[in-house]
Amino acid sequence: MLAAFLPRLPRGAHDDVGNGDDAAVLRIGDPRVVATVDTLVQDLDYRPVWPNGRVTRGHDVGFKGVAQNLSDLNAMAAYPIGLLVSLAMPADTPVDWVLSLADGIADAIHTLGAEGCSVAGGDLSGAREVVLTITALGRLDDAGPVLRSGARPGDEIAVIGRVGEAAAGLALLETAPESGSPPGAPAGAALFEELISAQLRPRPPLGAGAAAARAGAHALMDLSDGMLRDAERLARASGVRVDLDTARLAGFADRLAPAAALLGADPMHWCLAGGEDFGLLAAFTPGTVPAGFTAIGSVADGAAELLVDGRPSTTTGWDHFAA
Amino acid sequence: MLAAFLPRLPRGAHDDVGNGDDAAVLRIGDPRVVATVDTLVQDLDYRPVWPNGRVTRGHDVGFKGVAQNLSDLNAMAAYPIGLLVSLAMPADTPVDWVLSLADGIADAIHTLGAEGCSVAGGDLSGAREVVLTITALGRLDDAGPVLRSGARPGDEIAVIGRVGEAAAGLALLETAPESGSPPGAPAGAALFEELISAQLRPRPPLGAGAAAARAGAHALMDLSDGMLRDAERLARASGVRVDLDTARLAGFADRLAPAAALLGADPMHWCLAGGEDFGLLAAFTPGTVPAGFTAIGSVADGAAELLVDGRPSTTTGWDHFAA
Repeated sequence: MLAAFLPRLPRGAHDDVGNGDDAAVLRIGDPRVVATVDTLVQDLDYRPVWPNGRVTRGHDVGFKGVAQNLSDLNAMAAYPIGLLVSLAMPADTPVDWVLSLADGIADAIHTLGAEGCSVAGGDLSGAREVVLTITALGRLDDAGPVLRSGARPGDEIAVIGRVGEAAAGLALLETAPESGSPPGAPAGAALFEELISAQLRPRPPLGAGAAAARAGAHALMDLSDGMLRDAERLARASGVRVDLDTARLAGFADRLAPAAALLGADPMHWCLAGGEDFGLLAAFTPGTVPAGFTAIGSVADGAAELLVDGRPSTTTGWDHFAA
Repeated sequence: MLAAFLPRLPRGAHDDVGNGDDAAVLRIGDPRVVATVDTLVQDLDYRPVWPNGRVTRGHDVGFKGVAQNLSDLNAMAAYPIGLLVSLAMPADTPVDWVLSLADGIADAIHTLGAEGCSVAGGDLSGAREVVLTITALGRLDDAGPVLRSGARPGDEIAVIGRVGEAAAGLALLETAPESGSPPGAPAGAALFEELISAQLRPRPPLGAGAAAARAGAHALMDLSDGMLRDAERLARASGVRVDLDTARLAGFADRLAPAAALLGADPMHWCLAGGEDFGLLAAFTPGTVPAGFTAIGSVADGAAELLVDGRPSTTTGWDHFAA
């Protein structure tokens, strides 16, 4: 298995030692290394077969595992240099599925623009379900790291990347055809496929973290658990009041409207409460928000809390009828 | 859970950023970082309850997970600076067991002499069985890394650490009391406990890798899959003939004799074929073998293969009746 698995994984520019020794040696070029780990578990983080009929390919799992890890590096204004991949799986996992997973890892590195990032080490073992654990190592941009604790009163809060799309895609995947029009219905077919892809293959805007750091971002984090939860974390870590302006999120919500109409959902709820988009949330001095970021809120002195349109919000969700 | 888990884990001297951000930043002090990952899976890498009645504590699993990872750094002549811990487990895993696992991680770092090594990041998730994945990051000794591919004709092969003890311990754990005297029988009780501990809590000789590098070791690797398999890997990677001398392993085998007598086993088989001791195997110019290492064989020009007492060996085992 390893003999077929390994050659599909990219070797990188930072590898100092080839494969086959006890550990990898990566040339980092900085006395600091950025490191993060994330695990994807079958049935919890994805369904082998979704209620809408979609089958999860190994490629999807490998791609998402890489994307969510590289997003964490992005949020520290770091560049990926290497991954360590540990895959535990049932003995009867089809070889094709496993090789597809390797291809998904390689595809994510390429598609997300992490060229030069290697798969520097790994481990294959048995388990009752697929458990994919990826460790990502990065080198810092000179301006990084930017922590989530640096937002200052007067700052603008800005976002880059997809907003609400992964949540809309998840809702489509979780909807069985008999419970409404199938997601593949002609009216929104292309959009629905894009939203499903946003859930299965997140696209963290790599490089935007370093760009934010160079633009002087005071705080930076990735959006993994949803705008409300994550913005509240930023507010708490920074000890400031963050106020999100839903009018500035309307463009993101509008894009989701056809899926929301199909499923009887509120697109703004996806934008505010939906996770796994792996965009970035950042705080900037007004006037310094870099290209690509959308200003969506402000930072004020006061209790460390999150407001939405000037009203207290809860991390468990957002009720636009209360606004 | 995380709130109780994290404070039990050591923070380290190399942490540049405290907990709570998207990724860890470790000050490595060298433009190169050494990285390795290993996974322990319930029922495959350990039994929740062993045939001899021993119950595996969370402490055992955490300790072993750390030990086998730090051994890989040791084998590259590197010093551990940080760990990333991903723990997937069933929802009904007792909290005490999980906290015991955290204590085992901390205990291993302390007991193995890896002070200053932090648990810099982690992830907790669900799964049908316990899957513990640890990533270890290290900084290189100036003389490192030492690869497994550098052995030269004329070198001596030497070992440091336990030999055969983890295999003897495994055999004791796998022996139900009804199939013979219980391992706790008075005659060898203290020894048997030590051997079981060797299996559950390996003691890689951290620092010996760097010492070997400073002594000019030509090749270095850790003993995880048994002397025969690992020495053959060294022979192949280096393109040399390695000849192990069982007479020089007799001291290791003698120590295992009471357990072997109890179980009707061959102690030399444990020494040659048993894995998971996590000692080191190294190749040195004759006369430069450092203190603590035991010379056990020689390197000669010729086919890249392993001999035992001058005869070809197989990686599947060793039959002393053939010798």
